[in-house]
Amino acid sequence: MRDAYHDELKALTGRLVEMTRLVRSAMSRATTALLDSDLPLAESVISRDKDVNTLLEEIETTSFELMATQQPVAVDLRTVLTALRISNDLERMGDLAVHIAKITRMRHPDSAVPAEVRDTILEMGQIAERLVTKTGSCILTQNAELAQQLEDDDDQMDRLRRRLFRVLLSPDWTQGVEPAIDVTLIGRYYERYADHAVRIARDVVYMVTGSRITENQAEGL
Amino acid sequence: MRDAYHDELKALTGRLVEMTRLVRSAMSRATTALLDSDLPLAESVISRDKDVNTLLEEIETTSFELMATQQPVAVDLRTVLTALRISNDLERMGDLAVHIAKITRMRHPDSAVPAEVRDTILEMGQIAERLVTKTGSCILTQNAELAQQLEDDDDQMDRLRRRLFRVLLSPDWTQGVEPAIDVTLIGRYYERYADHAVRIARDVVYMVTGSRITENQAEGL
Repeated sequence: MRDAYHDELKALTGRLVEMTRLVRSAMSRATTALLDSDLPLAESVISRDKDVNTLLEEIETTSFELMATQQPVAVDLRTVLTALRISNDLERMGDLAVHIAKITRMRHPDSAVPAEVRDTILEMGQIAERLVTKTGSCILTQNAELAQQLEDDDDQMDRLRRRLFRVLLSPDWTQGVEPAIDVTLIGRYYERYADHAVRIARDVVYMVTGSRITENQAEGL
Repeated sequence: MRDAYHDELKALTGRLVEMTRLVRSAMSRATTALLDSDLPLAESVISRDKDVNTLLEEIETTSFELMATQQPVAVDLRTVLTALRISNDLERMGDLAVHIAKITRMRHPDSAVPAEVRDTILEMGQIAERLVTKTGSCILTQNAELAQQLEDDDDQMDRLRRRLFRVLLSPDWTQGVEPAIDVTLIGRYYERYADHAVRIARDVVYMVTGSRITENQAEGL
């Protein structure tokens, strides 16, 4: 019985890693679709989000059953609770990729991305992928040191978002209000995607060490 | 021992209701500060967010201890797990009020809200307050019917956000790009605040009934 239990705990981690792969692929396709105004690719991001949601539900069901029947304590309890938190963050990351795909769809066959911000958004997409790849490694290897690297990538994402605003507010911006709104929201979605990745990394640290960065620490309050 | 346990479960609900009061007050002050360009009020939203975070930490600590020592099952387990989810949503709602307060601070002594969208934002603020008040009642009374009302208020919030976009994109919009960016983000923050309130209401339904609306159902996939 206890062996089946530890197999299930391991399977939980496996499903989380699988979720990181799905939301990485979703964001990668969302970025390409956005930059290339590729409608079928954008549609694939939207329609395949249900696979992410299904994995979330599996993780929630398994976690609940594990807690109800095995009553884990200490590191095992932290593992199950953390799996619940992480799966919710990953589900949200999938939604953010969908939001970007929907902007692509709304503007198609035009592009939602004016030339002036193309490079910045390409870079945001690359950092998003790097972040979620590291998030997957973090979960799989339970390597708390990797978590620090994610914070650095997140800082880079914030810098890119500030660069976006500078371009939108520069006197050279001639695209008007509608593209500015799109780019503002797109920037916000990449930033939030990165925030969730960082939150997951912190959760892995908590799972491994049992000590958590508080919200007040995280927000510098 | 089991009596102390049920007292602690009840105290958990009390702390959640207290959190709804804090994030309601935060959003109420954030809206007033935004509309009146009131810097001290905006600052109060930002500085008092730590109280929300502290409550979150207390709820997380209590929940973990309850699970580790009392090993709840069935409705008690759902109550503890739901308290964890709800407290995370409430913490996020507090952050969204802070985001609005920070826009107020950034533009002060100017207003971030041009006259053309003032009424719409006032209404968004009112719906946000109504939502979180009902969320608090939902948690306190565990009334699953109230949850449906929240979905209706959320639809109203979505309509207001579309109205915001219509104003920003109308040929009459003469305010340029910077206020359009501010209003886009402000609208997004109110919308997300409402989304979290709805998620909490659904969690209360789950806590009471044991059946959950899946993400695929919620997202219409």
